[in-house]
Amino acid sequence: MTADQGDISGLTIGVLGGTGDQGRGLARRFAMAGHPVIIGSRDAGRAGAAAAELGRELGSEALISGAVNAEAADQADVVIAAMPWEGHKDLLASLAAELAGKIVIDCVNPMGFDGKGAYALPVAEGSAAQQAAAVLPESTVVGAFHHVSALVLLDPGVTSLDQDVLVLGDDRQATDVVAALASRLPGVRGVYGGRLRNCGQVEALTANLVSINRRYKAHAGIRVTDI
Amino acid sequence: MTADQGDISGLTIGVLGGTGDQGRGLARRFAMAGHPVIIGSRDAGRAGAAAAELGRELGSEALISGAVNAEAADQADVVIAAMPWEGHKDLLASLAAELAGKIVIDCVNPMGFDGKGAYALPVAEGSAAQQAAAVLPESTVVGAFHHVSALVLLDPGVTSLDQDVLVLGDDRQATDVVAALASRLPGVRGVYGGRLRNCGQVEALTANLVSINRRYKAHAGIRVTDI
Repeated sequence: MTADQGDISGLTIGVLGGTGDQGRGLARRFAMAGHPVIIGSRDAGRAGAAAAELGRELGSEALISGAVNAEAADQADVVIAAMPWEGHKDLLASLAAELAGKIVIDCVNPMGFDGKGAYALPVAEGSAAQQAAAVLPESTVVGAFHHVSALVLLDPGVTSLDQDVLVLGDDRQATDVVAALASRLPGVRGVYGGRLRNCGQVEALTANLVSINRRYKAHAGIRVTDI
Repeated sequence: MTADQGDISGLTIGVLGGTGDQGRGLARRFAMAGHPVIIGSRDAGRAGAAAAELGRELGSEALISGAVNAEAADQADVVIAAMPWEGHKDLLASLAAELAGKIVIDCVNPMGFDGKGAYALPVAEGSAAQQAAAVLPESTVVGAFHHVSALVLLDPGVTSLDQDVLVLGDDRQATDVVAALASRLPGVRGVYGGRLRNCGQVEALTANLVSINRRYKAHAGIRVTDI
């Protein structure tokens, strides 16, 4: 399996909810791969502070900026939705105009925790990604990056990620772009994982990885074999 | 990660719905690992014929027998539920007495197919495994072997399976036994994958593997990294 990465290396990545751990982690790794990154937040000041901190850490201040979510959505070529599940639907719906015509990568895992650990929350639309598609009819929604741990993404000691990223969507060109973007992260292969209607179980599988991490004291990931 | 396999190597494995591809495939691999295996079917004659054919192929006729499902359930130490999803609930409910006190391994994937490929069917109980637990209150239900392809299990050319088997359940001793049983298959690691309430997404992920197989012309499996 190969993915042509030639034409995607210059894409500017916007990250909605980019001051959260998962958002900052992905922003960090895409900046490390050479992409201009815009960290989005409700608060421009917090976005700017997170961007400045990442820029200092990586020595690449010019690549990383911060903005309110609407501006990040508007200015980026490809946008990652990394906000908390609680605000997922409303925030995306409010940005439908800015996100029109763009690939929106949804990495949100609707998950609850109780005394017995993590569990998948039911989602009326079937999955977070399908919910995004429902409120963003003018965008192309792709599900990806559900299983990469924020801890691992943010760890300066981790130079290569030992996992594949499952990429789900109904538009072949869009899933190819996102698979190629995923493959920009060292060690990662972007692997087509099915249509958007099969994204719910990929999101939910994060609860299993939480259980595995607890049992084996690990930061577990998934590799697909025989491809 | 290790699993003590010393005390499970002599367990007799019963396979309900054992004349289907998945059931025969698992029966075959457990017989190859040295376990006595009882293939269960609605029809004793079909069960016997499947057992005889496997016995001839493997040169181990003494290890493999066939019986009606109730007899297979009654005589086996550990029972694998491998019937079609359509008959899952009713068949298991009818065998509640024979399965009482035993570990029942559910490997059934509730799945539909249409012009766009495979998709996960909704299950009122949350998953096939939870449905089994609901109708088998005296048994210990464990979910496992969802992702191993029957084609691979039945292929004489495949001497080692490049995948992990996720093992789900609420009873630590039972999941340890099933993880150890899974690890008896060459190349396989049995990996604890969470509680039964998180089994639905593991079953449903089979639809994604079908999509991956189609896209990459593969028999894809899953490996868990960092454990």
